[in-house]
Amino acid sequence: MDAITEQLIRLALAEDIGTGDITTDFLIPEGETGDGVLVAKEALMVAGTATAAACFTFLDPNCRVEVMAPDGVRVQAGDVILKVEGSLRALLKGERTALNFLQRLSGIATHVSRYAEMVKGLPVRLVDTRKTTPGWRVLEKQAVRTGGAFNHRMALYDGVMIKDNHIAVSGGIKPAVETVRKFISHLVKVEVEVSNFEELDEALESGADVIMLDNMSMEDVKKAVGIVAGRAMTEVSGNITDENLRIYADSGVDVISSGALTHQARSVDISMRM
Amino acid sequence: MDAITEQLIRLALAEDIGTGDITTDFLIPEGETGDGVLVAKEALMVAGTATAAACFTFLDPNCRVEVMAPDGVRVQAGDVILKVEGSLRALLKGERTALNFLQRLSGIATHVSRYAEMVKGLPVRLVDTRKTTPGWRVLEKQAVRTGGAFNHRMALYDGVMIKDNHIAVSGGIKPAVETVRKFISHLVKVEVEVSNFEELDEALESGADVIMLDNMSMEDVKKAVGIVAGRAMTEVSGNITDENLRIYADSGVDVISSGALTHQARSVDISMRM
Amino acid sequence: MDAITEQLIRLALAEDIGTGDITTDFLIPEGETGDGVLVAKEALMVAGTATAAACFTFLDPNCRVEVMAPDGVRVQAGDVILKVEGSLRALLKGERTALNFLQRLSGIATHVSRYAEMVKGLPVRLVDTRKTTPGWRVLEKQAVRTGGAFNHRMALYDGVMIKDNHIAVSGGIKPAVETVRKFISHLVKVEVEVSNFEELDEALESGADVIMLDNMSMEDVKKAVGIVAGRAMTEVSGNITDENLRIYADSGVDVISSGALTHQARSVDISMRM
Amino acid sequence: MDAITEQLIRLALAEDIGTGDITTDFLIPEGETGDGVLVAKEALMVAGTATAAACFTFLDPNCRVEVMAPDGVRVQAGDVILKVEGSLRALLKGERTALNFLQRLSGIATHVSRYAEMVKGLPVRLVDTRKTTPGWRVLEKQAVRTGGAFNHRMALYDGVMIKDNHIAVSGGIKPAVETVRKFISHLVKVEVEVSNFEELDEALESGADVIMLDNMSMEDVKKAVGIVAGRAMTEVSGNITDENLRIYADSGVDVISSGALTHQARSVDISMRM
Amino acid sequence: MDAITEQLIRLALAEDIGTGDITTDFLIPEGETGDGVLVAKEALMVAGTATAAACFTFLDPNCRVEVMAPDGVRVQAGDVILKVEGSLRALLKGERTALNFLQRLSGIATHVSRYAEMVKGLPVRLVDTRKTTPGWRVLEKQAVRTGGAFNHRMALYDGVMIKDNHIAVSGGIKPAVETVRKFISHLVKVEVEVSNFEELDEALESGADVIMLDNMSMEDVKKAVGIVAGRAMTEVSGNITDENLRIYADSGVDVISSGALTHQARSVDISMRM
Amino acid sequence: MDAITEQLIRLALAEDIGTGDITTDFLIPEGETGDGVLVAKEALMVAGTATAAACFTFLDPNCRVEVMAPDGVRVQAGDVILKVEGSLRALLKGERTALNFLQRLSGIATHVSRYAEMVKGLPVRLVDTRKTTPGWRVLEKQAVRTGGAFNHRMALYDGVMIKDNHIAVSGGIKPAVETVRKFISHLVKVEVEVSNFEELDEALESGADVIMLDNMSMEDVKKAVGIVAGRAMTEVSGNITDENLRIYADSGVDVISSGALTHQARSVDISMRM
Repeated sequence: MDAITEQLIRLALAEDIGTGDITTDFLIPEGETGDGVLVAKEALMVAGTATAAACFTFLDPNCRVEVMAPDGVRVQAGDVILKVEGSLRALLKGERTALNFLQRLSGIATHVSRYAEMVKGLPVRLVDTRKTTPGWRVLEKQAVRTGGAFNHRMALYDGVMIKDNHIAVSGGIKPAVETVRKFISHLVKVEVEVSNFEELDEALESGADVIMLDNMSMEDVKKAVGIVAGRAMTEVSGNITDENLRIYADSGVDVISSGALTHQARSVDISMRM
Repeated sequence: MDAITEQLIRLALAEDIGTGDITTDFLIPEGETGDGVLVAKEALMVAGTATAAACFTFLDPNCRVEVMAPDGVRVQAGDVILKVEGSLRALLKGERTALNFLQRLSGIATHVSRYAEMVKGLPVRLVDTRKTTPGWRVLEKQAVRTGGAFNHRMALYDGVMIKDNHIAVSGGIKPAVETVRKFISHLVKVEVEVSNFEELDEALESGADVIMLDNMSMEDVKKAVGIVAGRAMTEVSGNITDENLRIYADSGVDVISSGALTHQARSVDISMRM
Repeated sequence: MDAITEQLIRLALAEDIGTGDITTDFLIPEGETGDGVLVAKEALMVAGTATAAACFTFLDPNCRVEVMAPDGVRVQAGDVILKVEGSLRALLKGERTALNFLQRLSGIATHVSRYAEMVKGLPVRLVDTRKTTPGWRVLEKQAVRTGGAFNHRMALYDGVMIKDNHIAVSGGIKPAVETVRKFISHLVKVEVEVSNFEELDEALESGADVIMLDNMSMEDVKKAVGIVAGRAMTEVSGNITDENLRIYADSGVDVISSGALTHQARSVDISMRM
Repeated sequence: MDAITEQLIRLALAEDIGTGDITTDFLIPEGETGDGVLVAKEALMVAGTATAAACFTFLDPNCRVEVMAPDGVRVQAGDVILKVEGSLRALLKGERTALNFLQRLSGIATHVSRYAEMVKGLPVRLVDTRKTTPGWRVLEKQAVRTGGAFNHRMALYDGVMIKDNHIAVSGGIKPAVETVRKFISHLVKVEVEVSNFEELDEALESGADVIMLDNMSMEDVKKAVGIVAGRAMTEVSGNITDENLRIYADSGVDVISSGALTHQARSVDISMRM
Repeated sequence: MDAITEQLIRLALAEDIGTGDITTDFLIPEGETGDGVLVAKEALMVAGTATAAACFTFLDPNCRVEVMAPDGVRVQAGDVILKVEGSLRALLKGERTALNFLQRLSGIATHVSRYAEMVKGLPVRLVDTRKTTPGWRVLEKQAVRTGGAFNHRMALYDGVMIKDNHIAVSGGIKPAVETVRKFISHLVKVEVEVSNFEELDEALESGADVIMLDNMSMEDVKKAVGIVAGRAMTEVSGNITDENLRIYADSGVDVISSGALTHQARSVDISMRM
Repeated sequence: MDAITEQLIRLALAEDIGTGDITTDFLIPEGETGDGVLVAKEALMVAGTATAAACFTFLDPNCRVEVMAPDGVRVQAGDVILKVEGSLRALLKGERTALNFLQRLSGIATHVSRYAEMVKGLPVRLVDTRKTTPGWRVLEKQAVRTGGAFNHRMALYDGVMIKDNHIAVSGGIKPAVETVRKFISHLVKVEVEVSNFEELDEALESGADVIMLDNMSMEDVKKAVGIVAGRAMTEVSGNITDENLRIYADSGVDVISSGALTHQARSVDISMRM
């Protein structure tokens, strides 16, 4: 588990438990043990089991967690996702946080899987964006992959995305791309955002690896894909819907990115039974 | 700002910036300044401006942020919520994290305000639950208040909620309430979850301050409220909808709690223009 | 163990060991094991055994600690409180910190138990205050309960205490109570500090749950209790002594709070024998 | 301010404020300012003003704190120790923690100063021990110096103290001293604990810099001092009292160490007036 | 400044100052100010000025630091690199840590610049590796760029490097590349390590972006470059020396990586004068 | 392991792994295990095995590490230093950081051992300085001892070193030494830096424990040693070389300190084979 996710889980447990669960600490004796199951209350695709498990094992390293439905599995209402056995105090204290993680991450996987299904087999990558819940980046990107879509860059550090402000300060697309190439690793690609055909030409000339077609009509997107002709990857961005996704997919672009994959997902219903 | 929220913001900035924004750090000179506005792209109720502002000022303490539409204000598409002026690097690096916070928190306030409106003036408190985004408890509870609803306990440490497991281990509702009273502060109330009339009687007898009517039919809820007759506060819980909220409100219960206030809210659309 | 106490113990070990125990690290081979006992050197009531144990197990997770006299037990000079067995380095490095915790916490329990004894069976709660050693709040509140007294609110976050400054800014007791009620959970009570009968009336009218009678003569306290007549809990505060505790207890107030329970306790004598 | 003390203050503020001061945050508007004074309620020697001041400035960097009675000054009941001006919220939230620090540290300085006075001018150093409040080492050692006594080693890392366990494992005092000398800096001295004259001889022969005379009768102490004859510093240890301090001081030993300097001090009475 | 570098600087100051600079804290009054210059004692290329400056400003935010010779400038013995003015305590406490950073980072830039000079203008990128000082990754990679060479991937998270273990577990180069492409962002490239011509063919076929020619003779390297024929970038790795660098550069490979750029650099001589 | 070293190792792993090793996490299944050996590629003296081992066990507590060549042992090219067995992911992720630690620390021990050999048996201590890699103080000081030399003070907190600035502010060497003695522990020694015979006399008179002869010719050093005549320890400082070390050693000084022991060491060649 990466360090940021570990910090988030500890933060989440601390915000809920603080100086103590005054119901459980005062009513449940320390040695008492128990077991419980996390059960789906609706049809969903599971994601986040490792994080949910950690909510219990961080509280009691002796908890035994068994994943019955691993990430990526579709379950129905009533299906058991996770079994946990251990200190009853830990179970009661970790319950809400574990569920909050599992419900949101499974919600994303479930939501994403619908759209991933629609472009399955097509030569296009449906990818997420940086529009994720602050603190949850790694977890939500994982849930997106679980749901069957792909990831855009993880963050600001592992991919170059040149936008209008960068271009303005650099004096054009070409100088921007050339400058940044001198500083970045040869394992990192450069993407440039363009909004018209003049900028598209400049981006192609600059040797950009990926070109983001911003705010173009579908007609212009198709025309742009024709101009690029494989000399760079092409990407369009926007909130995907049942209607527009297929149109995007048929435009010939290589990548469709959408903040809605993470942003518009809702928590699914899961509960814990002791 | 409380310590946990400060940690969450720092975590969020760290997860997005990590070892550096390789586009901005390599293209924007250190001294360059700029300004930008966070603009609503749809009608919404604002929440989370202090957190969004912190995303910029944590990166550059010399950033000047002006809140144009404070928490609780309704804005229309095109309205400016926040102005920020300072290091261009800080503006570009903080943009996404600031928006991610503001969009989700305003989404909650907007969502909550619809339901709060429906029970306005009625003698009932519509309250949230602990079904919040892990790491975001304080922020989401604030957004709920901004939206016009109320808060249930903040966490496991500031209110007693006795459920079936606690009752089973304690040997009944009465011993559970009596035991916990000895350990808690006299400023903290005790709530007991009951699911039938026998338990209700025992809870009343135990002197519980609040009684949660769990999984009861609307008819039974009304009957229970009659039995309680003001000797304790009463609470019902569930996912609220346009249909059921009014019915709950008319049942005579004192408190309606709903995880949906936070759980089912979606991010609203806000963007930044430099 | 709550997160703050864990941090305090780690801080305490770090402040004593720092970059290394230059006597032990250079003279005791790493594999060497040993055992030791923590022995009372005077009659005392034990408190803090879990914290003392943690000082050893944090240094060497393989240490075995056996609690011979659990929290709340009275021991005599010569009685063994704790046995510890493990890495000799860990025993020597943890000794002083473990003792420093155990001596102060047992000191508080011993001190508190004297006063708790004096009001045993009376319908009054003797409670502590927020006058605790910074960093030690949770531990000292636990020791107070161990000693047989009760806890006031844990901190500023789990109980409302309205004092003169809050009243002045809010424009009176009633508006203060009404305003705060809108923001707090329905599981949290409101206490108001009053210093005369006019304020007492206003507090009663405001619906305050608890009323703190501040700086009133014993006569006035009794009169106030009569006026309140069960419509709110009443509390008096002050440094308790052998003389005044009984008088307070007989006044009819519900709660006597005293900073002296924690503030005026001294460390008792305990030492470690290897 | 050293890193550990800074951590302790932040921990202390976090334990008292947590997710928010629900009285102050909900009743005092954010912009409200105020001023207050910390006033002695009894005669005392001031210590800890910098720490008390930090409690306010950590909460609001714009607070202005003026120290009216610096560390080491004796004040009378009614004298102002500190003035603070700034955000009213910060003043109300920091008050209790600031007082808790100032009361305990001034309590130590006041306590220590009585004993320091008794040996003033004599060729003996009255020093503290490692029997300090966990987390407070640096602060309490400072308060001891403020009170007019001296410090023993700060912790396990800045002085060698060879005790019976070290000697047993090393095969004697001489091998222990010789071994440790090879590993420590030439700026650090070696102290050896001896309990009879045979050990004293061995310690002298080993070239120990300081010899601790443990559990010896006063007569033996005097004899030991005669034997040492300036070849090493000598130290006796114990709980000092009005009776025994002078006797110790006249024995000719160089150093008298006493855990009571910190362990048996009590908080003095100081309060805040807004 | 990125979060890891900030942590390293705070760690470095903590390890040197700990509970206090017992010489400076006890001899230099708190208000005393002073100024100093960091002066080169030999010819060198400057790197690390921001880090050195932070050592002073972290201790005293009011320190004024003026960089006289910015990163990348060559200076001679006697030239001033940095001026600092502020609290004398901060200057004395920060001196050694600031110098330790500046000496090592300038040592790297100076060392790197010699080799960068030798390949200047040639169509080859001389790049560093992950053989950096633990904790110093960002700083040393910066110093490498300052010295005129380029960076390989920053770490394990921003570039794929498939080695023999990965290939063995995946069942071949092609399945490895195909699998990893599904999980990584489209902004991240894939590099594959090959050690013979068969593997080279497989790597080309797999569509790897970069091919590392491992342990090949110079003759084989040239042959491999011919086979690749621009279908992928090529990289050779090894400890560079005055003799072999030019030979590598003439082989036609695109990238020469060398751990020696960071690993074999030594601190240069810089001192502080007050 | 001390807290700072533990922090450094965690920082080092975090800087290399960050949000994930995108090659290993996506290609190596979680349950896969493996084993590897860390092998010397040149003759060297081993140091840092505990730190290297921790790089693996911090990632996977179930890793089994066996040290084949403990710290202080000389190995030849091809000799195995460490065996590690465990999760293949942990092995691949920890490899580079473990090697980076082991290579630098063994480099220091190897470098130091050459000089330690040259003064073996002579009545002089060859010691290091505070010119260590920021963050690595404890580790490098250990490696120096492993290499056969001695340590100067660990840091600013465990030894007094009075330099010109301290003397200037204090009004002379004597007042400086007298003042500092009042504040420090009697287990800590005082060293004074002198640069001429007048200062030497003043230092002797002040009772300094150690006198640093700064910037004196070898002739003056010898003369100074004669004047001191055992009344204090004497120390000379400088970059040691094969030529000057013997001359320093024969001058009669007690201590030779040299930053070059740590500053001029280079990483030795060690690699990992799976």
